[in-house]
Amino acid sequence: MMNFSSKLLENAVNEMSQLPGIGKRTALRLVLHLLKQSKDQTNYLADALQNFRNDIKLCNSCHNISDVEVCEICSNPNRNEEIICVVEDIRDVMAIENTAQFKGLYHVLGGKISPIEGIGPHNLTIESLVEKVKKGNVKEIILALSSTMEGDTTNFYIYRRLEDFDVNLSTIARGISVGDELEYTDEVTLGRSIINRVPFANSLKS
Amino acid sequence: MMNFSSKLLENAVNEMSQLPGIGKRTALRLVLHLLKQSKDQTNYLADALQNFRNDIKLCNSCHNISDVEVCEICSNPNRNEEIICVVEDIRDVMAIENTAQFKGLYHVLGGKISPIEGIGPHNLTIESLVEKVKKGNVKEIILALSSTMEGDTTNFYIYRRLEDFDVNLSTIARGISVGDELEYTDEVTLGRSIINRVPFANSLKS
Repeated sequence: MMNFSSKLLENAVNEMSQLPGIGKRTALRLVLHLLKQSKDQTNYLADALQNFRNDIKLCNSCHNISDVEVCEICSNPNRNEEIICVVEDIRDVMAIENTAQFKGLYHVLGGKISPIEGIGPHNLTIESLVEKVKKGNVKEIILALSSTMEGDTTNFYIYRRLEDFDVNLSTIARGISVGDELEYTDEVTLGRSIINRVPFANSLKS
Repeated sequence: MMNFSSKLLENAVNEMSQLPGIGKRTALRLVLHLLKQSKDQTNYLADALQNFRNDIKLCNSCHNISDVEVCEICSNPNRNEEIICVVEDIRDVMAIENTAQFKGLYHVLGGKISPIEGIGPHNLTIESLVEKVKKGNVKEIILALSSTMEGDTTNFYIYRRLEDFDVNLSTIARGISVGDELEYTDEVTLGRSIINRVPFANSLKS
């Protein structure tokens, strides 16, 4: 129990500690930090959060977050719209964009199928993905979900929904991270990396 | 470098990562979390931070933060105004209040003397402490600053400023934390705890 001498401070700390991973003590430290800075600084922060939350849109096509109806990536004529990379959320889009290795489009599911958390296929944007494929100009779908039970379940569900269509399904390669030591790698990853070995010439490309 | 697809997101993340200990990745996680919650939630957070920053006052007497001109503690008639505990900041007030062992008043310095950080006596509220003592009804001042070089310097400066007045100066006891093992305690603390040993009967009181 914290003993606040101020209702204003208590409210600020309580709201701040609603954020994930921010406990009361951290919230207090952050809020008191604002006092050391100009009022403008706090106003900028508050405005930025409110503008973001109130005005952000989800792209009509890929469901990535966007300032406009159709996001920068989907509306870029230089991107290859025949290849769609399916990801869980916007952070995955950012991670893949940072590699500069993918020039297709994305499809953001908004999560993974997880019966435990009560997330079924209808809570995700899978239907909209199927609609895209039905239109016929998608040639390949790359499944880039995390390698967990939920990820695998979601991959399999998408595979079943799309198996009647003329589209290639692939998943991103699992294997030893670049720079990692073999002896410290878990067995499943090491096993898969042997099964899914690639011709040596291919490994020289990247 | 993060590759944002949205200016709104980028602004929110940039402002959030101005807070101490919040890097860009953490800021992104926190900001995206807001999307999973109602707009109201973000508005509450933004309002709470702005109301706090814009309306908070410093108590006229002890410089603790407060919603009103004179804080709850200073205006409480049950507190003993003859004893003043000098602390660095408001978190120390909260920590001491939580112990429920102190019934006097506080005086918040707002920092410690630190030539390296460019903080001199005049950046702190030491003058206002001296004025309080001059008025004559303060009998004891407890110095409760952290045990660092800056804390010791500040303690010594206050001691010199107050030595001509009829007021008792004490510092909080340094020693082995309750529950700590002797063998893991640093030498300075252990040394001081021996020099400043207390009659065994006293240790039974708390």
